[in-house]
Amino acid sequence: MTTAATPARPSRDQLEVFPNQFPGRDYLVEIICPEFTSVCPKTGQPDFGTLTFRYVPDGSIVELKSLKLYLQAFRNEGIFYENVTNRIFDDLVAVLRPRRLTLVASFTPRGGISSRIVVSHPDGDPLPPAV
Amino acid sequence: MTTAATPARPSRDQLEVFPNQFPGRDYLVEIICPEFTSVCPKTGQPDFGTLTFRYVPDGSIVELKSLKLYLQAFRNEGIFYENVTNRIFDDLVAVLRPRRLTLVASFTPRGGISSRIVVSHPDGDPLPPAV
Amino acid sequence: MTTAATPARPSRDQLEVFPNQFPGRDYLVEIICPEFTSVCPKTGQPDFGTLTFRYVPDGSIVELKSLKLYLQAFRNEGIFYENVTNRIFDDLVAVLRPRRLTLVASFTPRGGISSRIVVSHPDGDPLPPAV
Amino acid sequence: MTTAATPARPSRDQLEVFPNQFPGRDYLVEIICPEFTSVCPKTGQPDFGTLTFRYVPDGSIVELKSLKLYLQAFRNEGIFYENVTNRIFDDLVAVLRPRRLTLVASFTPRGGISSRIVVSHPDGDPLPPAV
Amino acid sequence: MTTAATPARPSRDQLEVFPNQFPGRDYLVEIICPEFTSVCPKTGQPDFGTLTFRYVPDGSIVELKSLKLYLQAFRNEGIFYENVTNRIFDDLVAVLRPRRLTLVASFTPRGGISSRIVVSHPDGDPLPPAV
Amino acid sequence: MTTAATPARPSRDQLEVFPNQFPGRDYLVEIICPEFTSVCPKTGQPDFGTLTFRYVPDGSIVELKSLKLYLQAFRNEGIFYENVTNRIFDDLVAVLRPRRLTLVASFTPRGGISSRIVVSHPDGDPLPPAV
Amino acid sequence: MTTAATPARPSRDQLEVFPNQFPGRDYLVEIICPEFTSVCPKTGQPDFGTLTFRYVPDGSIVELKSLKLYLQAFRNEGIFYENVTNRIFDDLVAVLRPRRLTLVASFTPRGGISSRIVVSHPDGDPLPPAV
Amino acid sequence: MTTAATPARPSRDQLEVFPNQFPGRDYLVEIICPEFTSVCPKTGQPDFGTLTFRYVPDGSIVELKSLKLYLQAFRNEGIFYENVTNRIFDDLVAVLRPRRLTLVASFTPRGGISSRIVVSHPDGDPLPPAV
Amino acid sequence: MTTAATPARPSRDQLEVFPNQFPGRDYLVEIICPEFTSVCPKTGQPDFGTLTFRYVPDGSIVELKSLKLYLQAFRNEGIFYENVTNRIFDDLVAVLRPRRLTLVASFTPRGGISSRIVVSHPDGDPLPPAV
Amino acid sequence: MTTAATPARPSRDQLEVFPNQFPGRDYLVEIICPEFTSVCPKTGQPDFGTLTFRYVPDGSIVELKSLKLYLQAFRNEGIFYENVTNRIFDDLVAVLRPRRLTLVASFTPRGGISSRIVVSHPDGDPLPPAV
Repeated sequence: MTTAATPARPSRDQLEVFPNQFPGRDYLVEIICPEFTSVCPKTGQPDFGTLTFRYVPDGSIVELKSLKLYLQAFRNEGIFYENVTNRIFDDLVAVLRPRRLTLVASFTPRGGISSRIVVSHPDGDPLPPAV
Repeated sequence: MTTAATPARPSRDQLEVFPNQFPGRDYLVEIICPEFTSVCPKTGQPDFGTLTFRYVPDGSIVELKSLKLYLQAFRNEGIFYENVTNRIFDDLVAVLRPRRLTLVASFTPRGGISSRIVVSHPDGDPLPPAV
Repeated sequence: MTTAATPARPSRDQLEVFPNQFPGRDYLVEIICPEFTSVCPKTGQPDFGTLTFRYVPDGSIVELKSLKLYLQAFRNEGIFYENVTNRIFDDLVAVLRPRRLTLVASFTPRGGISSRIVVSHPDGDPLPPAV
Repeated sequence: MTTAATPARPSRDQLEVFPNQFPGRDYLVEIICPEFTSVCPKTGQPDFGTLTFRYVPDGSIVELKSLKLYLQAFRNEGIFYENVTNRIFDDLVAVLRPRRLTLVASFTPRGGISSRIVVSHPDGDPLPPAV
Repeated sequence: MTTAATPARPSRDQLEVFPNQFPGRDYLVEIICPEFTSVCPKTGQPDFGTLTFRYVPDGSIVELKSLKLYLQAFRNEGIFYENVTNRIFDDLVAVLRPRRLTLVASFTPRGGISSRIVVSHPDGDPLPPAV
Repeated sequence: MTTAATPARPSRDQLEVFPNQFPGRDYLVEIICPEFTSVCPKTGQPDFGTLTFRYVPDGSIVELKSLKLYLQAFRNEGIFYENVTNRIFDDLVAVLRPRRLTLVASFTPRGGISSRIVVSHPDGDPLPPAV
Repeated sequence: MTTAATPARPSRDQLEVFPNQFPGRDYLVEIICPEFTSVCPKTGQPDFGTLTFRYVPDGSIVELKSLKLYLQAFRNEGIFYENVTNRIFDDLVAVLRPRRLTLVASFTPRGGISSRIVVSHPDGDPLPPAV
Repeated sequence: MTTAATPARPSRDQLEVFPNQFPGRDYLVEIICPEFTSVCPKTGQPDFGTLTFRYVPDGSIVELKSLKLYLQAFRNEGIFYENVTNRIFDDLVAVLRPRRLTLVASFTPRGGISSRIVVSHPDGDPLPPAV
Repeated sequence: MTTAATPARPSRDQLEVFPNQFPGRDYLVEIICPEFTSVCPKTGQPDFGTLTFRYVPDGSIVELKSLKLYLQAFRNEGIFYENVTNRIFDDLVAVLRPRRLTLVASFTPRGGISSRIVVSHPDGDPLPPAV
Repeated sequence: MTTAATPARPSRDQLEVFPNQFPGRDYLVEIICPEFTSVCPKTGQPDFGTLTFRYVPDGSIVELKSLKLYLQAFRNEGIFYENVTNRIFDDLVAVLRPRRLTLVASFTPRGGISSRIVVSHPDGDPLPPAV
């Protein structure tokens, strides 16, 4: 058993995109990431949650492996729920320039209380789940 | 085994807030509290329920630990379903000044009958669940 | 083992109300009663169902214990699904004078077929479930 | 063990109705029939499905036992999914003259593929499930 | 709406049996009755539960319609959980003379507490569910 | 829409087997058939159920398509639950000569009551589900 | 809203019993109490859990309302999971003198960790759930 | 054990249609295919997903067996999620000329991340599930 | 879109093992593979299933990536349910030499019938699921 | 956002115990930890799983907060499934000296394959779940 190498700190430069081959069409991509973890800056305890991204691509599609590595980089970052959700949202909007994007962050219970944060682009107009 | 210290009676002063760092955006915060308990003023029997808060913050975010302690202070209060729901709703609106807020209070069965109360700000315009 | 006393026949007089302390607000009360039973007037066999009431109170709130006793009074009444649903609906509207009210009656299978009846005030405008 | 008597072939004459006692009101009746079976005309193999009827009655209510016998009469009929759904729909509309009616036919998997057909009156305006 | 005729009081004479055509074999019959209701002798309030019978027949099989009518006869009887379960169990054992029999009576919550009673013949040797 | 050809009446001759290529080993085969239907000989109404076979083969394996056609042949047969279960069991034992075999027949509710029959070879020693 | 009267501290004297009318038989009584709450003596925070009792009565049956009031008396007691479970278990054994008894205490998550405690009489021989 | 014959490569010519017998009506057909598999062009690893088609037919209905064979032809094709979804969508639109069509492709997790793609005709106006 | 390279045909040589570092202890390893697919040799149609392995290692542990590639090699093989299950079982036993091993193969429905095969080493003594 | 302080590396010294106040009795403690995470030493990718401990205490009880911190210390350790499970098991046995202990480690899917490891003391005799 060895200590793992320290991962890179999260940066929107880690996010890779490839061209959307169907730009003439408004279609939905939904990505569910149930293994998100970061650290509470106040208590130093780890937080756990599920991140769900829904977006309508414009020129770019996010490459899934780069998204995974970007999210893993939050593993040892100390950051609050509301802030980490808005920060990841801002990074995705900056890199993808999507027509629409919604991020739902759902965190596991602490002290018997669980939380969800929902952020959308355009502002306040959430995309419903893919069904 | 010892009798626990008597908790403070509930007061909106117990609710702490911190500044919303993303006030330029309409986003949703959903908080689920499945461990709410108070006392029926008629029978003296404990009531149990789940409180779900959904709000769009304006300038303030509610601090989760203070919310937990505020809700715990109802533990030995005698108060009816409709009244406790509207009272907690009023306290949150007063302290948070949210753009929108919905409170769903769901109580466990009594005599084979279960109840839910839903209150919203602005009046009569409930926020849907975060999904 | 003894034969239980014959219950009163159902009457809207059994329904008690108390004043709504928050009349300035349009809020929702949902009440779920999974233990409703009456008798089929054609076959004499018992029927079983779940009644779900949703209403926006105006001046009055229905008292839950009186609602339970009123519903229990249908135990030995012979009445069809559609009629019992509309009759209970009419009694609640008469006593509560709610701003809105929806009653969903869901009956268990007979001959492999199950039924639900939904009645609303104002007419044809059902209230969605509290979630 | 004996061969059962051959059932009558399906005819809308089998459907009985009784007068709607609350014609001044737009209410919903939902009927769920999970034991529908007919025969594939191409392969001769039996098909199985669940039929869900939702309607707003006008002058008439369908009698449930007659509906059950009418549906059982399809047991040995060879007919495709789309056609049996539309035929039953047409029979109900003709006999009930409902204000609105939706039929959802959900068939079990064949070759790893399952199907649902939804038909509505007025055309293209489906009634949502009773909840 | 009319008051239904008073049902017969429960008697083991209501239970009909027919001969077991496979007496040379130990096989299991499981019967699930989710619509049982009687009355609490102390409060006069109705009780609701599910009765599950499991038995290995010897010479006789219980006729299901007679079992249904026998159970319906408890509808207006005032009797405690433990006693009604043991009484029905005794009636079945007397009429069926089964090789083995288990009765599970599962009652809905009262005051937040739900109960199950399990009685078996031979004594203390319950039959597992059919799966 | 045409009346389907009358299917053959059920006969154990319809069941085909092929040689077990691993006779040196006691292994379990479980087959779940959720689309079984026959007719009640008393009422003429169709019955519906799920048949689950579990067996340890000796020299023979049942061919699944022949099993399907054999079970379909009960579609228009009038026969009681207990008898149809034991008859199918006897046919399987006769044709397969398995080391062990359990048949679980689970029928849908009639009059609010559902039933399961479990028959095993050797007698009274049921095989547990494959998990 | 008023502070509720301080409840009595828990004592086994609160537990009432009545005579078992079927002492010649080993049968099982299972009681599920999902609304148990006490207080953590270290943090002062409330704990929540479900208590499940299973017992084979000898001479006595526990009266359910007295059990409810006894359990409610722990509402303001400071006591650890393992100790409260064993204490309640000891009180039940002392009052009921059951042939067998198992208590399962299942507590809600704290810090992402949930706990269950199982105690049995006779020692180490738990009763399985009623199914 | 033998290597199976190489299947045809996917082509929209494999899709067969038959005339819609109810073209005067806007009705919904939903088809669920949980056994879709193709190959990742980057890693050579198989992908697995569920495809759900919903459409309002105009002149044509897709024949289900031809749809199954068409989808099976992707078994050994290397193609990305977004591209395979849009390609199948384009083929269905070309062959069916439907009034409306939605395709939901839901893929199983890779690296802890699962994905769904939703494409609709007319563009950006998805059909809801049949319920 | 390109045709993927033809995968290797399945061979037990593909299975890699590494030494068990805790050979002094009987512990259980359970591996669940829900993405197994092969081809029916009679119809040429693909089969889909979930394979669950449970074993008590002796000297060797199976390397998971090699197991995945070995199972993927069955993608284009024509082989019956019973045979593919027993063949994979034989390969694992040969390579791992486990103290105990159970393989459960659960296949999706064909013609409304689903199947499971369970094979164990030592013969006829299946390992229960890890819970 | 700041990088969190590097946590201590895992050591059995982190595990605290307190005396079992009921040593005369064999009772079960079950602890469920769904937020375990470590790192794959080969790929550097994080692993996620649920650890379930069940034990019969002798002289000592594990303190839950210390267990939580001990498990969190694996967050940045590179270690295989089988090894981390056996190591944690060894640490618990060393510190608690329990009469019996079972550890079930259930890891999330990688490449479509999920795994569980079960280790017990005494060797090969797992404790069943608390129910």
